[in-house]
Amino acid sequence: NRSQSSPAAGRLNLSGIYPPIATPFTTKEDVDYQKLKENLQKYARIPFKGLVVQGSNGEYPYLTEEERVEVVRMVRQSLPGEKLLMAGSGCESTRATVELTGRMAAAGADAVLVVTPCFYRGKMDSRALIHHFTKVADSSPVPVVLYSVPANTGLELPLDTVLELSHHPNILGLKDSGGDITRIGLIVHKTKTQDFQVLAGSAGFLMAAYCLGAVGGVCALANVLGQELCELERLCLSGSWEEARLLQQRLIEPNAAVTRKLGVPALKQAMEWFGFHGGACRSPLQRLTEAETQQLKQDFTTNGWL
Amino acid sequence: NRSQSSPAAGRLNLSGIYPPIATPFTTKEDVDYQKLKENLQKYARIPFKGLVVQGSNGEYPYLTEEERVEVVRMVRQSLPGEKLLMAGSGCESTRATVELTGRMAAAGADAVLVVTPCFYRGKMDSRALIHHFTKVADSSPVPVVLYSVPANTGLELPLDTVLELSHHPNILGLKDSGGDITRIGLIVHKTKTQDFQVLAGSAGFLMAAYCLGAVGGVCALANVLGQELCELERLCLSGSWEEARLLQQRLIEPNAAVTRKLGVPALKQAMEWFGFHGGACRSPLQRLTEAETQQLKQDFTTNGWL
Amino acid sequence: NRSQSSPAAGRLNLSGIYPPIATPFTTKEDVDYQKLKENLQKYARIPFKGLVVQGSNGEYPYLTEEERVEVVRMVRQSLPGEKLLMAGSGCESTRATVELTGRMAAAGADAVLVVTPCFYRGKMDSRALIHHFTKVADSSPVPVVLYSVPANTGLELPLDTVLELSHHPNILGLKDSGGDITRIGLIVHKTKTQDFQVLAGSAGFLMAAYCLGAVGGVCALANVLGQELCELERLCLSGSWEEARLLQQRLIEPNAAVTRKLGVPALKQAMEWFGFHGGACRSPLQRLTEAETQQLKQDFTTNGWL
Amino acid sequence: NRSQSSPAAGRLNLSGIYPPIATPFTTKEDVDYQKLKENLQKYARIPFKGLVVQGSNGEYPYLTEEERVEVVRMVRQSLPGEKLLMAGSGCESTRATVELTGRMAAAGADAVLVVTPCFYRGKMDSRALIHHFTKVADSSPVPVVLYSVPANTGLELPLDTVLELSHHPNILGLKDSGGDITRIGLIVHKTKTQDFQVLAGSAGFLMAAYCLGAVGGVCALANVLGQELCELERLCLSGSWEEARLLQQRLIEPNAAVTRKLGVPALKQAMEWFGFHGGACRSPLQRLTEAETQQLKQDFTTNGWL
Repeated sequence: NRSQSSPAAGRLNLSGIYPPIATPFTTKEDVDYQKLKENLQKYARIPFKGLVVQGSNGEYPYLTEEERVEVVRMVRQSLPGEKLLMAGSGCESTRATVELTGRMAAAGADAVLVVTPCFYRGKMDSRALIHHFTKVADSSPVPVVLYSVPANTGLELPLDTVLELSHHPNILGLKDSGGDITRIGLIVHKTKTQDFQVLAGSAGFLMAAYCLGAVGGVCALANVLGQELCELERLCLSGSWEEARLLQQRLIEPNAAVTRKLGVPALKQAMEWFGFHGGACRSPLQRLTEAETQQLKQDFTTNGWL
Repeated sequence: NRSQSSPAAGRLNLSGIYPPIATPFTTKEDVDYQKLKENLQKYARIPFKGLVVQGSNGEYPYLTEEERVEVVRMVRQSLPGEKLLMAGSGCESTRATVELTGRMAAAGADAVLVVTPCFYRGKMDSRALIHHFTKVADSSPVPVVLYSVPANTGLELPLDTVLELSHHPNILGLKDSGGDITRIGLIVHKTKTQDFQVLAGSAGFLMAAYCLGAVGGVCALANVLGQELCELERLCLSGSWEEARLLQQRLIEPNAAVTRKLGVPALKQAMEWFGFHGGACRSPLQRLTEAETQQLKQDFTTNGWL
Repeated sequence: NRSQSSPAAGRLNLSGIYPPIATPFTTKEDVDYQKLKENLQKYARIPFKGLVVQGSNGEYPYLTEEERVEVVRMVRQSLPGEKLLMAGSGCESTRATVELTGRMAAAGADAVLVVTPCFYRGKMDSRALIHHFTKVADSSPVPVVLYSVPANTGLELPLDTVLELSHHPNILGLKDSGGDITRIGLIVHKTKTQDFQVLAGSAGFLMAAYCLGAVGGVCALANVLGQELCELERLCLSGSWEEARLLQQRLIEPNAAVTRKLGVPALKQAMEWFGFHGGACRSPLQRLTEAETQQLKQDFTTNGWL
Repeated sequence: NRSQSSPAAGRLNLSGIYPPIATPFTTKEDVDYQKLKENLQKYARIPFKGLVVQGSNGEYPYLTEEERVEVVRMVRQSLPGEKLLMAGSGCESTRATVELTGRMAAAGADAVLVVTPCFYRGKMDSRALIHHFTKVADSSPVPVVLYSVPANTGLELPLDTVLELSHHPNILGLKDSGGDITRIGLIVHKTKTQDFQVLAGSAGFLMAAYCLGAVGGVCALANVLGQELCELERLCLSGSWEEARLLQQRLIEPNAAVTRKLGVPALKQAMEWFGFHGGACRSPLQRLTEAETQQLKQDFTTNGWL
């Protein structure tokens, strides 16, 4: 376990910036481990706290469980020991999540990121979600980070559920991708005594999240502009709010482009422009159209990044 | 291939009522094949056109691929040869769907029901969906039925996509669970020359769907009140609209209770009351609370079913 | 009071088809009473049950209260005595609705159509809505018809509220524009003993609504294809379901075009093509673009109406 | 014109905190001008930049136009000359908004706050909205502030529309109540050269909005905790971010309680507890239930305000 200056004795300190890394594929849509390794070598030069493997941007719903574990194992081998590896281990059923969590820990994950199950979203009330996350956290060999990403799951992890789960000794924090800054501030406020760590789930509201008490961010855009997001972190932590604001403002459009506007195919296209291997997604995700590519480029150029 | 009087030469005739069967589990949450078999014996006495296996009510997102195939294989063995077996084979990625579709056909499915992939719903536009369903239909050994279930997927298969896909020779029809009767009427109207078969995806709008030109229904409630739904079909087909209306009206509340209001746990609870094996769901789906059970019971009693 | 063969002794019989008439304006955006009168003369030849004045298609939110009352007074003068005049009298506050209801009755309305107040939609729960409609119905000199139109108000009148209000002696029925046929069937079913009359609020689900027990329709499209909607009514009432289906299917696209797709400006444009005065809307509603006009035309031509 | 150190020569400087004042009523639901005056006397001791009259919290949709103007006139008489008076003058139609805007200016408003028209929300696209706001701003004797409040209108003023309108010489800024901090940051960023002023529309995200470049806030909670919101402003402007955060966090729950959770009736109830006249709302808004009152109280007590 690689925990640094921990916020409470023995607790893993999550603070910092993480790219939720993309999964490169070959032209036959197989995982391209060589290209992944080359991306990791480039990310090693950026002061990330660690990496998230098998987040939404890793196309985990399109990988088999074997592939999900294998990618984690391979990343762990390439990653310097002091960097955290947070692995996405969420599945729809509790039993599958428990099992995959164990395999992720065995493959070298320092923590697991567990997304809300969502297919039967009408029935995923507090009772069901508390049961699910408690079972997973009870059995997990490594700490658990909750993951709320309503744009994909159509479901926000309810506030009362987060607060209840924050008391579990093996649940460390929350990655919140919903972007409601009021909610983030309230979660920080209501969990002060639990030393619960909140990570912004997108670069668009990273500075605001720091303002309200978040400790870091897991940001798709860090796959492309990782150095800049670490710089934004430094500005926020050192109280350089004026400079932070100007940098943050220039990141909003590129971030929106590679997330909700154009999604993973855009993230991978932008990675190519910035010297990383992106390439195509697994189907049914399609390459960008020519018009979408132009739109994406414009969102980077008008903000001075290309 | 067990096709009956086909609507076009050689095309499988889908018309009729299907229960999307529930999957019974043991107290340890393993698939209970024995109880499933006993349910099948009871369903054999009801004039269903066939069964849907691994629809949403079968908790397919909570089963492994192995289990999904095994359940289909086992149902095929128990099912009289003249009954259709439609198997849900949808996965998030195209490659997994293609592969599972092949395995479902090999396990004895007469047709496959392919749900819209939905995790990256912001990117699941017509282009992506047409690509996905076309690839699956091109390779499938058995006919494909499209499956739109927005309550679970947060995504309605767009009308123009349905119309485009209706021209594919291996795409037979659509199960539409959204309940927009205007849309159902329009799909029937615009696909007349393709002989495209539309199935109502819920008992709540079954009669209205027949009015507008649907050929049958895949209805969760058929797990509980199968005989009554077949009677409703008979009344609609014979033009007994007055009687049909009275029956339909009494089915709306029980249907809502076992679907959007209280979901699969309620369906399984109601099955117990009507002599079938329901039992618990896989976690994170929870058993009904006492209050929910009372509400469920009331929705059956006030309509004269209990 | 012009009630016909009433469903219960003394109750106004609402059954039949009504156009919610559009309000023509001059080029200066003043109400054009002359053109309105000419439209009324043409509508007089169609076997409508009556007219709705100041429904959503009449642009009532853009008229002053004076104008709203004046239009009703003028229509009453032109309308044959045996035709019902239903006037929209809903305002945001209860006191304004009560007052306008009284003025509408004095101006000659046979019944009032009262839309759900909606600005504070988060607070418009059953308690608030029951209070509102009860106060209005208590004081109204003419019968009240509830009006639920979620596409405009962002609020569906809750089912339990409708059922509760159906017991009020001065609340006759509901115009439901939401299009959920399951809800319509359930309302008919649960209000049988109150002799509560449900009107379909759009032509897209008119036949389905008749199937489930509705007694008529208030349909924007009746401003354009009124004769055809009366024919659809006749086919439904006489049990000619096959013919009804074919006619209904051809009406879905034109109806969608003049309602949710392109709205009141499209309705008024289509009226021009069919010999009525439509013209421009009050601002901020804009005339159709050229592309929208083509789309609208196509929705009529491909279904054989132009 | 009372502009202070203006951001551009001659432009009204909006920066600061504003309560959108509530409208007290008598037990007969008439406007209670005496109580309103007494509230104003108390607000005069708080360093607000000014007041918003006839915002959503003023129940403007429940007032007649006469009342709306009369309240503004009366507030202007009581308000010290250096305080800004921003009056809500939005109506559904452009012509009514133009007219009321003129009357508001004549009654003493320094600026008008114009809400998005919303009844025909499906048709309120950029074209319609740009037309509407341009017409209003062209004719308005005083500067115009745009007002986007999707919780009430079901419609967010689109970003591209805001950017386009920011070029109008008589459109000064935007009150944004949607709470999307990414959007607020982007609007500030993209309008830098227009000197466009953004006001946070709610206290829940006030600090985050300051971080991203907003110049102030129009906050319902300022009716209750006005001094504290002015203190939060001071902390943000002086760079005391740590203290600001602690104060902001304690304001989130009380703010949510008097806005989206329990609405205007809760705001008025809380005003009573803090020495202001709140009282009942106009119907259909209802007084809080006992349970709601307890919930409201708790949201203030657990954060140390009661």
